Amino acid sequence: MSQVLVEVWRGPLIESVHRGDLAVVDVRGELLYAYGHATRVTYARSAAKPLQLVPLLETGAAAAYGLSDQEIAVCCASHNGEDSHVETVRGLLRRAGIPESCLRCGVHPPYYAPAYEGVLRDGGDVLPIHNNCSGKHAGMLLLAQHLGADLDTYLDPDHPVQKKVLQAVSELTEVAADEIVVGTDGCGLPVFGLPLRNLALAYARLGQPDGLSPGRRAALARIRDAMMNHPHFVAGTDRFCTRLMEAAPGSVVAKVGAEGVYCVALPELGWGLALKIDDGNSRAAYPTVVEALAQMQALPSSAVSELAEFHRPMLTNHQGKVVGQVVPNFRLESMHV
Amino acid sequence: MSQVLVEVWRGPLIESVHRGDLAVVDVRGELLYAYGHATRVTYARSAAKPLQLVPLLETGAAAAYGLSDQEIAVCCASHNGEDSHVETVRGLLRRAGIPESCLRCGVHPPYYAPAYEGVLRDGGDVLPIHNNCSGKHAGMLLLAQHLGADLDTYLDPDHPVQKKVLQAVSELTEVAADEIVVGTDGCGLPVFGLPLRNLALAYARLGQPDGLSPGRRAALARIRDAMMNHPHFVAGTDRFCTRLMEAAPGSVVAKVGAEGVYCVALPELGWGLALKIDDGNSRAAYPTVVEALAQMQALPSSAVSELAEFHRPMLTNHQGKVVGQVVPNFRLESMHV
Repeated sequence: MSQVLVEVWRGPLIESVHRGDLAVVDVRGELLYAYGHATRVTYARSAAKPLQLVPLLETGAAAAYGLSDQEIAVCCASHNGEDSHVETVRGLLRRAGIPESCLRCGVHPPYYAPAYEGVLRDGGDVLPIHNNCSGKHAGMLLLAQHLGADLDTYLDPDHPVQKKVLQAVSELTEVAADEIVVGTDGCGLPVFGLPLRNLALAYARLGQPDGLSPGRRAALARIRDAMMNHPHFVAGTDRFCTRLMEAAPGSVVAKVGAEGVYCVALPELGWGLALKIDDGNSRAAYPTVVEALAQMQALPSSAVSELAEFHRPMLTNHQGKVVGQVVPNFRLESMHV
Repeated sequence: MSQVLVEVWRGPLIESVHRGDLAVVDVRGELLYAYGHATRVTYARSAAKPLQLVPLLETGAAAAYGLSDQEIAVCCASHNGEDSHVETVRGLLRRAGIPESCLRCGVHPPYYAPAYEGVLRDGGDVLPIHNNCSGKHAGMLLLAQHLGADLDTYLDPDHPVQKKVLQAVSELTEVAADEIVVGTDGCGLPVFGLPLRNLALAYARLGQPDGLSPGRRAALARIRDAMMNHPHFVAGTDRFCTRLMEAAPGSVVAKVGAEGVYCVALPELGWGLALKIDDGNSRAAYPTVVEALAQMQALPSSAVSELAEFHRPMLTNHQGKVVGQVVPNFRLESMHV
């Protein structure tokens, strides 16, 4: 059974707890640290986005359409739906001559509350382009067009784009394609059920792709650098992914997934981390990630301090008064003897 | 350790799970059913609201201000911030001559998304009156005025209103006042840390207060009937509390609390139920409550059917396609030999 990672204190009582599993591996797939079950199978959700983008670069589509680093970053994003994100995705589609109406990601309010309020106050509508996944979908539309494949059915697991994506995910995680559990994501795309340590391996390789084929190496290095150089485009204002990458420039590639998934690449160390919170709540993922990185001494202490509001966030009430705190409370198991 | 109550399926995989504890007692406090730890101490959060309202009735304040049943119900509510709720709370304050600016509950967007969107599209502001707790706060302001006490400091645990509330909660739950763990709620009021079985006892008595003093009996019966007769005012459109009470008229009094708390009174049986989800997510509380009531045969099967979307809710993605399901999976332990 999974172990407690995070306690939620209110006054003198632990009000809630969050359990989960975590794995850290190196580029050879060797398990370095764990908590709970490193082989637990879970959906990668949006933490798969950087991996899902690999075929866009490997096929030459990204070069053909002249993608900028900001555009690469937003294609890996679970973005806030801020104007900067929306305009970047719009620009990408416009340059490829693909109508916005081709996006099949569906609609949810922008994550960033001021962006949502702005749309409503302006009398506008929330659109698929505001969906946090719109960059990923735009990237897949570009790839479909580059391949001469159908634009309408790009969500379909049998579509040429999705076949290429599954193949890349399989090779990067070293899980046979027919052993990857496939479900459907909130945005309609296939999601990939994988053991945590295999997901961590793909992130180790994202950070340090040196041993792979030249095409894959170049694709991963471009994605890694685009995310680290443009953290705002991977998430946005006040978001943990953005703040974590900003706190340790060049040392961390970080990506959230829905239902309490989180993945980190540590390029300098060649390590990858994958985390799943049992109950799916990301409020436990962020403190766990900062605490795990601190325990592994993978972040400078100044970065840990800068991330205090994510590491041990205060609970405030609707008057802004502090009424409690979210506190990680675990000790990583080191596999080094 | 708490046990799994609810599984969240996506495609062929359990993606997330929720653990928790549950207790069901009769009006004498005898434990009838349990799952996990019936004596686990947790904050009642908003499930305490019907109990917190008792002094307003016992002191004669409710009669002095001529409170209607709808107004009683909204004073127990975690309401949606719909116009019906806002206008009912406004009417109550107006009749007592208490300015809306006396509400100290703070501000959050109305729970009901169309109500929030309506405020923004109309160019309005989200106000304390939209806070789900505004009815409870209005009731406390009325009680403060009735007692001749200060209106500005009614949140303070030492305020005459809060002393009366703590005393009532202590007597109803049979936990000594100095053994109740006190924290601060999202709305600034004291919250009460209690063993689940004691919280369940207070709900058993709310449903069947016959053995208590005449004043308390009358207060609880009025609150019980107001909630059952006006379920919309206890929560609102599309909300589980409202739908559960509507599905079994006269058989259930139901109230959610934050962080995965849920309480139910079963007046015909004289039973009370209290539930805490470990991780604080209410998405697990609703399926657990329907399943527990079904296992105890405390709901007609037609009511269980009517509540299917809360009992085993489908997960849909942003295109409206079903991608998974939330499924309760536990067996209550019966204490009957």
